[in-house]
Amino acid sequence: MPVHQTTLTIRTRGQGTHEITEPVARELARSGLVRGLVNVFCQHTSCSLVIMENADPMARRDLEAWLDRLVPEKDPHFEHTQEGPDDMPSHIKMALTRTSETIPFADRHLMLGTWQGIFLWEHRRAAHSRGIVVTVMGEA
Amino acid sequence: MPVHQTTLTIRTRGQGTHEITEPVARELARSGLVRGLVNVFCQHTSCSLVIMENADPMARRDLEAWLDRLVPEKDPHFEHTQEGPDDMPSHIKMALTRTSETIPFADRHLMLGTWQGIFLWEHRRAAHSRGIVVTVMGEA
Amino acid sequence: MPVHQTTLTIRTRGQGTHEITEPVARELARSGLVRGLVNVFCQHTSCSLVIMENADPMARRDLEAWLDRLVPEKDPHFEHTQEGPDDMPSHIKMALTRTSETIPFADRHLMLGTWQGIFLWEHRRAAHSRGIVVTVMGEA
Repeated sequence: MPVHQTTLTIRTRGQGTHEITEPVARELARSGLVRGLVNVFCQHTSCSLVIMENADPMARRDLEAWLDRLVPEKDPHFEHTQEGPDDMPSHIKMALTRTSETIPFADRHLMLGTWQGIFLWEHRRAAHSRGIVVTVMGEA
Repeated sequence: MPVHQTTLTIRTRGQGTHEITEPVARELARSGLVRGLVNVFCQHTSCSLVIMENADPMARRDLEAWLDRLVPEKDPHFEHTQEGPDDMPSHIKMALTRTSETIPFADRHLMLGTWQGIFLWEHRRAAHSRGIVVTVMGEA
Repeated sequence: MPVHQTTLTIRTRGQGTHEITEPVARELARSGLVRGLVNVFCQHTSCSLVIMENADPMARRDLEAWLDRLVPEKDPHFEHTQEGPDDMPSHIKMALTRTSETIPFADRHLMLGTWQGIFLWEHRRAAHSRGIVVTVMGEA
């Protein structure tokens, strides 16, 4: 069975969700495969993935702000603090969301719902360069 | 490699978990495949998936009620409110649970543990019709 | 397409994260496959999976302690209590983390990031024997 695989380098601009639906769809197109599964994998522990509404950006801002309130910086219980006050909250936010997502495709198109977009969620304050592996498997 | 794929339409009756193990197992049987992976994908951002105990329904009610307390409606911080007070909490609950699950099978059977069931978790108050894509890949 | 599949039995020593990167990598090596996807599936509803930093163990302890504070035992709302005070919190912690992870591999190696390890997260107080299914699919 054919496997198409690439590591995308995504530049984030600090905390927030960053849509990656387009580059993932581009890898699917490049694979030449017709029907199967696309796996998206985040190679980091201080950013994560989420499939979220991509219509109203306010919905994403509300989601981000809610998670910031759930996992505040400067929690006096944290002991792993040498990488900065935003590091430990980043690991927790990552654990509560996703590292891998596997998405079906048919007729060469991602079977996302009407309002779904794939997002890389940067949890660190600083801009980072992130590795996202896209693997396409299925019928030619 | 053979790929079997269907979109199930699941009717929910408002907030709560709705078991879909049976229809997923039925698609696996229809695929004719013997060993591999079944991917279940939720095409929405206000409902989600979870693999949870299917023995005592009280365990699921406790889980649902706990998440309702963690993400209450009418949070004054929410700005994305035009789709109703249950919309933004639904997106958050979705992000904290799962959009895709990939489950192994062998001898034509899902390798779920004794107490595991696959559930569609409706987060909106109203009944909805939900699209769940089931993709089976593996050895014939 | 070739499929390699095994159920690992992992002995936990009570609450906490338990690294399983090595046994998963060993199954990948045994498969003989070169490029594709490895699926790791947890057959239980009171333990779960997470891909987390494996450098500083303090980061994991902070993550575990944070989740313990979010989901305390003896919540007076719980009704599913007959299996002990740590049972219902275990189900909730499982639902907030992951049951399945799908990880790409190339050149016979897991494409994990530098700091990523795969962990089985035991949520029960007692030691348990846990079934983790590893399925490898891809190009020979």
